[in-house]
Amino acid sequence: MTIYIAVDLGGTHIRAASFRPTETEPLKHQKIKTRSKDEGIFERILHLIEDVIPENETLAAIGIAAPGPLNPRTGVILNTPNIPAWENFPVVEKLNAHFNIPVFLGNDANLAALGEWRYGAGQGHDHLLYLTISTGVGGGVISDGHLLEGRDGLGAELGHVTILADGPTCGCGHKGHLEALSSGTAIAKYVREKLKDEKTVSSLRSSASRSAKAIAKAARAGDPLALSAYQRAGKYLGIGIASFLHIFNPSIVILGGGVSQSEDLLYESFRESLQKEIFGPAYLENLSITTAALGDDAGLLGALALVEQKI
Amino acid sequence: MTIYIAVDLGGTHIRAASFRPTETEPLKHQKIKTRSKDEGIFERILHLIEDVIPENETLAAIGIAAPGPLNPRTGVILNTPNIPAWENFPVVEKLNAHFNIPVFLGNDANLAALGEWRYGAGQGHDHLLYLTISTGVGGGVISDGHLLEGRDGLGAELGHVTILADGPTCGCGHKGHLEALSSGTAIAKYVREKLKDEKTVSSLRSSASRSAKAIAKAARAGDPLALSAYQRAGKYLGIGIASFLHIFNPSIVILGGGVSQSEDLLYESFRESLQKEIFGPAYLENLSITTAALGDDAGLLGALALVEQKI
Repeated sequence: MTIYIAVDLGGTHIRAASFRPTETEPLKHQKIKTRSKDEGIFERILHLIEDVIPENETLAAIGIAAPGPLNPRTGVILNTPNIPAWENFPVVEKLNAHFNIPVFLGNDANLAALGEWRYGAGQGHDHLLYLTISTGVGGGVISDGHLLEGRDGLGAELGHVTILADGPTCGCGHKGHLEALSSGTAIAKYVREKLKDEKTVSSLRSSASRSAKAIAKAARAGDPLALSAYQRAGKYLGIGIASFLHIFNPSIVILGGGVSQSEDLLYESFRESLQKEIFGPAYLENLSITTAALGDDAGLLGALALVEQKI
Repeated sequence: MTIYIAVDLGGTHIRAASFRPTETEPLKHQKIKTRSKDEGIFERILHLIEDVIPENETLAAIGIAAPGPLNPRTGVILNTPNIPAWENFPVVEKLNAHFNIPVFLGNDANLAALGEWRYGAGQGHDHLLYLTISTGVGGGVISDGHLLEGRDGLGAELGHVTILADGPTCGCGHKGHLEALSSGTAIAKYVREKLKDEKTVSSLRSSASRSAKAIAKAARAGDPLALSAYQRAGKYLGIGIASFLHIFNPSIVILGGGVSQSEDLLYESFRESLQKEIFGPAYLENLSITTAALGDDAGLLGALALVEQKI
């Protein structure tokens, strides 16, 4: 019988799994570390794929989720922070040459949106907005049943939308992006900046870690600086999502990523700011706002959804 | 033979025209003032439509462009600043009951995008961004050959996207929207604010009009305040369009509306800010940035394009 392979090129792990058509339970599933001193990364990915092909099965197609920027139309990864050696790397052509089957490539956040739409929290919603909030902020949009990609597949970069012109600097070097205000990195940076002021009172001053996770822990213990850092991120998230509702008018908003798991800390300021910033009540009527259902499998199942859509 | 009717409900005029299928040259074309002391507005529109139906022709469908918010799926205009009497007005049902033919409704800026795509500056571009900059800022998006509307047709409100959180107040009452920074209204408001400072030197202080048009005239005569008002609008327009490129990754940006006719005053600061704010050079490669081709006919031809698409 035929099977599909899905591959997720993550920051810490590269994961691959084999699936029967129309099924989402993997036949075989493996992961390797992204960084390694062993042979080249592409050869390691080839072995990983070969390892998850069950015996006596015919490989019919491969789907790959990778962090952008990449061009899904040409199958080229322009550059990816996770694999510095890959610059303008034609991953689709390379895998196609090796396996001689169709290979499809997509931006991981876009594919996570596709995965949530097909198999996760967004089933039945043809107008869907997906945001993943962790170290960075990534986005994916389903508009009228179509994945929004743009001409070269560079669209839906919702973390890199300016919501506070001349505001704090983003990981990408530009100012005032949503990612620079609501990501885990932004939360940690805000705390770091505030602690430079000697007068700021916070348990985080003596804390070994000042990661977004450590800040969440301090916030839950009542630390005012930690609480305000999450409130601020929630406020700007509300402003950003209000704008995205005005642009896409979806029926569901799905929030994924580590920071969105600190819902309890973000929720109040997020809701308040969304209510305040919305252009009209119709945008919020019958709108679901929910957390992602696929967790760590979002990229993998997104790559599978891409294959199912293309084949 | 069969004909189509297109209607554009504008702020000052309501226009209607009849067309043969696949043709864009109207058979008959008329306009009336939007505001009048005569009989009800709906009756006046009925007469206008009847007036542009040529003799011995069969009316096959009607398309209507109206300012939002409106729901193209239900055919209801929620409310429109141009016709205060219409609140939750089921214009499609009403016209359908009278003429007994299919009637289609769309947001005027969305339909202008559709018109530019089908008949104007955007022909051949399946990823298109349209912005009209006049009193307000309206938007329309073609994504992969589909008009972006959202679940209830409330999408593509690109003027009501926050780009400067807690910034100047928009016509809609919210803060820091693109419309509050780059529209004609925003330009005039900025000048008004600056003139409150007695020390501001400007020829506009003694000018009878301080409209965006009068400010453009002063800028062309070298007035520093007028020049800075347009430069500021151009800067924020660049920031907004950079974000829209990150979201939609189009192959063309079309600028319409009165303010975009002051290209000479906006262009330099707009280009500079767009170059500065863009996430990566790929977004600007092979990107056309151009002015709208349909002028005053954008709404009418957009309504025609809607009919052609639906029939």
